Amino acid sequence: MKINGQHYRTIWLAQDGWRVVVIDQTRLPFRFETVALGSAEQAAGAIRSMVVRGAPLIGATAAYGVALAVRVDASDAALAAALDLLGATRPTAVNLHWALSRMRRVLSGLPVEMRAEAAYAEAAAICDEDVALCHAIGEYGLPLIREIAARKPAGQPVNILTHCNAGWIATVDWGTALAPIYMAHDAGIPVHVWVDETRPRNQGAALTAYELGGHGVPHTVIVDNAGGHLMQHGQVDMVIVGTDRTTANGDVANKIGTYLKALAAHDNGVPFYVALPSPTIDWSIRDGLRDIPIEERAAREVTHLSGLAEDGEVRSVRVVAPGSAAANPAFDVTPARLVTGLITERGVCAASATGLATLFPDMANKAA
Amino acid sequence: MKINGQHYRTIWLAQDGWRVVVIDQTRLPFRFETVALGSAEQAAGAIRSMVVRGAPLIGATAAYGVALAVRVDASDAALAAALDLLGATRPTAVNLHWALSRMRRVLSGLPVEMRAEAAYAEAAAICDEDVALCHAIGEYGLPLIREIAARKPAGQPVNILTHCNAGWIATVDWGTALAPIYMAHDAGIPVHVWVDETRPRNQGAALTAYELGGHGVPHTVIVDNAGGHLMQHGQVDMVIVGTDRTTANGDVANKIGTYLKALAAHDNGVPFYVALPSPTIDWSIRDGLRDIPIEERAAREVTHLSGLAEDGEVRSVRVVAPGSAAANPAFDVTPARLVTGLITERGVCAASATGLATLFPDMANKAA
Repeated sequence: MKINGQHYRTIWLAQDGWRVVVIDQTRLPFRFETVALGSAEQAAGAIRSMVVRGAPLIGATAAYGVALAVRVDASDAALAAALDLLGATRPTAVNLHWALSRMRRVLSGLPVEMRAEAAYAEAAAICDEDVALCHAIGEYGLPLIREIAARKPAGQPVNILTHCNAGWIATVDWGTALAPIYMAHDAGIPVHVWVDETRPRNQGAALTAYELGGHGVPHTVIVDNAGGHLMQHGQVDMVIVGTDRTTANGDVANKIGTYLKALAAHDNGVPFYVALPSPTIDWSIRDGLRDIPIEERAAREVTHLSGLAEDGEVRSVRVVAPGSAAANPAFDVTPARLVTGLITERGVCAASATGLATLFPDMANKAA
Repeated sequence: MKINGQHYRTIWLAQDGWRVVVIDQTRLPFRFETVALGSAEQAAGAIRSMVVRGAPLIGATAAYGVALAVRVDASDAALAAALDLLGATRPTAVNLHWALSRMRRVLSGLPVEMRAEAAYAEAAAICDEDVALCHAIGEYGLPLIREIAARKPAGQPVNILTHCNAGWIATVDWGTALAPIYMAHDAGIPVHVWVDETRPRNQGAALTAYELGGHGVPHTVIVDNAGGHLMQHGQVDMVIVGTDRTTANGDVANKIGTYLKALAAHDNGVPFYVALPSPTIDWSIRDGLRDIPIEERAAREVTHLSGLAEDGEVRSVRVVAPGSAAANPAFDVTPARLVTGLITERGVCAASATGLATLFPDMANKAA
């Protein structure tokens, strides 16, 4: 999508043909800076420190991280070390492990001297496929928005609430939850997005607002506390969020606080959709609440917060009373019973084993 | 309660015997500063700008604001003007209007020359009564905590989640939601409080954490998004919150986001209590969702946030992407069906017309 009128993806090869360039998302929305990653260690660091974030983009970055490793040393031992290093960066996003498994599968069968070129090709393929997946998600989600628009008085926008950032900068392009919204906007359907701030890291206020603004989509930022109230008063027509991992039963792990919005949507009859590319599905587990590991991040993400100070510098300020401890679980699990439907690259289905098996019989059977 | 070992109330007369001193809560937790209010205009300004906040303390400050007005001019016209001025400061808290009605009732029947002294006496009585009410709430809430403690393995703390600040600094002393917690802690019952940050103004992270820390009560600050996840994993034994207005049916207006926690508590079988002094009950309305006006505050409270910068200054930083709009509804309404019980100065009752009428037959009958 576009930034200042120029089209970008979130990850691309540098002009030198081997380093991997990403947008430093910890600097957005106040600074647009790119970082060139020159090693698997740097790729792992970028994932860990959330220079890149968003399940699909994490997967793509990890794939390129493997390419950066085997470029230097393509031995089995070096490949295994790179896979371990990159696999240990973030515990919740399943795309990470999906992308690394795919790299291992492709590379381990090849002679050492062919691995570097194959790794770059495979990482590029993962990126291109992600764009295609997100585009398809957008096309399948678009009719859901169109239907609501058709029921509203002409010109009244469809009010869509989203949590965190599942936009194009969380993927390689288009996004997951935001793809249908971009397509609706581009198709001339009036949409307005309620953007959850998404504490503690404010990906909504910082990133979703940034990219919606960049594309000209009307939106309003709200604190995470506000969505239930808006739903009680008929000001939300639908919710669309992304996910970091979805179980074979349709339970959905997503940014902390998603579960609360799903409860409010359920209580107020507001449709609650989750947009996901199929690599986000973990076919090996069913009970998300029991089996999806939830990352506990540093307390400082809660106690401190950074933003643009009046002197034009991005500054960190402490917001919690000195001496008080903080806890920081990064994700929660929304049970399938609260999800109206899953928007995938193959269509929309019920959040259930049956629903998923209908769209993905190949994968569901293999897992069963 | 205590700050640095010294006992404070939140509002008291200055040594000059007529000005009214309050703690500037917009400066907490990083600065402890007091402000002397010398006129009704200054009292109204302190309420409006949230130098004082919390429904009971707003009522007490408004009462003293009337005293400050009639001290200068005790005519009917001046009294009416002061009541209007103070009544227009905040739309949601019912204590404000309760306190002002009481002042009007007492003063309008008196000769002009007796009004100033009577106004100060009545404002002081309102403060003393608030302390007594909060103390009684604490005593009625304490057994609820004790019962949960008795069911837990010895030494394991009762985990109590609270939202916003309904502690002693929201009242004149003791607090509402926190009164039972202070009493449990003082009684040697191990308690641990999950403190919701409470965006956008962070009263939890700043004020609740500050006062719990000051009193030595173990607590952990979490973002508003986290409570549902903690409840799903059995880490919350009960929720206690305050309220700005409760309807005759038991619907509860409280800080934005309370409704989301009530939904999560309901979904996970966690008891959800609301602590309130009876002046917070609005006997004139039943349907809180329809009839309680919800204050919409400035967008800047969402887009900007202040905290302690590394240079030791309290600084404001922008956290929302430049150019993006923000909305800021300040309260939401939790329907009575989600409330396990109301903790009042006369005991604990069901959140229903019947429950309230049992404890407050005098007031309920008058309203009916």
